[in-house]
Amino acid sequence: MALGEFEIIDRYFRDIGRRADVLLGVGDDAAVLAVPPGQRLVATVDTIVDGVHFPHGLAAEDVGWRALAVNLSDIAAMGALPAWATLSLSLPEADAVWLERFAAGLAELAVAHDVALVGGDTVRGPLVVTVQVLGLVESHRWLTRSGARPGDRICVSGSPGDAGAGLELIQRGGAQTPAMRTLVRRFARPEPRIALGRRLRTYASAAMDVSDGLLVDLGKLCAASGCGADLDLDALPISSALRHAVTDPSVRERHVLTGGDDYELLFTIGEPELAAWPDAAREPACTAIGRVTAAAGVRCLRAGVPVAIEPGGYDHFRAGGTQ
Amino acid sequence: MALGEFEIIDRYFRDIGRRADVLLGVGDDAAVLAVPPGQRLVATVDTIVDGVHFPHGLAAEDVGWRALAVNLSDIAAMGALPAWATLSLSLPEADAVWLERFAAGLAELAVAHDVALVGGDTVRGPLVVTVQVLGLVESHRWLTRSGARPGDRICVSGSPGDAGAGLELIQRGGAQTPAMRTLVRRFARPEPRIALGRRLRTYASAAMDVSDGLLVDLGKLCAASGCGADLDLDALPISSALRHAVTDPSVRERHVLTGGDDYELLFTIGEPELAAWPDAAREPACTAIGRVTAAAGVRCLRAGVPVAIEPGGYDHFRAGGTQ
Repeated sequence: MALGEFEIIDRYFRDIGRRADVLLGVGDDAAVLAVPPGQRLVATVDTIVDGVHFPHGLAAEDVGWRALAVNLSDIAAMGALPAWATLSLSLPEADAVWLERFAAGLAELAVAHDVALVGGDTVRGPLVVTVQVLGLVESHRWLTRSGARPGDRICVSGSPGDAGAGLELIQRGGAQTPAMRTLVRRFARPEPRIALGRRLRTYASAAMDVSDGLLVDLGKLCAASGCGADLDLDALPISSALRHAVTDPSVRERHVLTGGDDYELLFTIGEPELAAWPDAAREPACTAIGRVTAAAGVRCLRAGVPVAIEPGGYDHFRAGGTQ
Repeated sequence: MALGEFEIIDRYFRDIGRRADVLLGVGDDAAVLAVPPGQRLVATVDTIVDGVHFPHGLAAEDVGWRALAVNLSDIAAMGALPAWATLSLSLPEADAVWLERFAAGLAELAVAHDVALVGGDTVRGPLVVTVQVLGLVESHRWLTRSGARPGDRICVSGSPGDAGAGLELIQRGGAQTPAMRTLVRRFARPEPRIALGRRLRTYASAAMDVSDGLLVDLGKLCAASGCGADLDLDALPISSALRHAVTDPSVRERHVLTGGDDYELLFTIGEPELAAWPDAAREPACTAIGRVTAAAGVRCLRAGVPVAIEPGGYDHFRAGGTQ
């Protein structure tokens, strides 16, 4: 099926999400959007490349979902609510089946978070997907990476490491057990922690999302805050799926510390705020995994004793090849 | 030189443009921006791919300039003022010299239009550049493609066709004469018509930018407005450079009608508004090239007689190969 770029936008991407604050949507030179009084605009952009950020051949629905999810995760880390998205899709050929499935995956997540797609550009080229998400946050309070203070507790949501283990399973040829399939799904369909981010505005001193690995991202949060961290390796959350699928505890720990792609929230919180935070509002479950220190650098402790850990984490230009 | 992705953003893209309304810029999970009361947000995204939208080997400064320019042109077509930009850069290797020159070209245009770069993502992959620009427009008046009415005059700014001729010269090995160098520069460094777009808010009934070719873009404007057009081929503006560099009048006409990449503004305007519009406010020069009709479709007239013209224009999925 030969599709032109204008038909692609019109057919697959015109009607993803609808919001009353979209005054002019897809189809003109630009979109016109109404920002409510008292709100700040939050903007983020992320690109995923075939064979670099996801394995070649990943289901088109999952590519669409992930392209939006990685951006929604940044919005969550700011404590904002997502509102609008734009999409730039470079793809080798106008494959109608692939496009329909890609758009379906993207739309599924967009609708779940009331995000309207307001602009798009499709070009011929290698498979590269860039999504920008615009969100809104109350003008007086948003989260940053730079607010951590010595003595704050360090927490992480959910179970980081699952997605990285899931990616390894995909690369090794697939998942044989229910636990393995859970891990693969955690890679393919990350759940942006929007609701948690909104609640953290009240309690957390700093937040970011875990995209490059817990250890390396904690290092970034500490650097932005001008402090350090003691990380308690014994406190790391290990999901039931990871426990079942990976028998070696040291491999599990490596996944939790260095696996990227989970898009959980890493945050710091003062003792009084942690005490005041109702358990019921912690969804997904959050685990205290360490404490902010005045001394710079991230120190890993096992049974209270510092141990050396290779930080890992993924850097697209430092890494030798594709992930 | 081995550069990590975080160093790339930090070194080359952190300080492009500065604005007081950037409350949080490059370096956190997302940017936080202040939209002034009474303003609407205008959002657009465009992607340029090496070998598709620009010839492989185009100077890095020009790639940077063009990546921003094609987006600013969309903002101009809305009658808005640009404010903030995000950049996603996929590139095969972290080449410090290329990056520095790319950033310099982008920064040159950003500073000229007071645009702050507020977010960036650099990934390893084929050379693909996506820029999103966010602009602001007064809440009561912006331009669209859909406001043309039968009887309106059709105008275009500057001299469309120059950039397409310039691209052909680049592909054929370069420019030998001053006229040819002018055409090449028109491709490499398009000037977004921001100031003209702002003035058109008062006078024009519809506007868009010419990115895919005058004839095909006029067809889109007419379709969006539910009308048609009579285009006067004898009235088409031909630049002095195009006249000098291309001797065959039919080739010149083809460039003007089907050459993309100029990023001039195409607009419609009622007779009273055209009469009321001061000549001094028409910078660059704008040429009346036809009239909006009630009947659908674009009709080309030579000496008042309809002639058949192959519409041309570039469609990335319909075209057989790269541009």
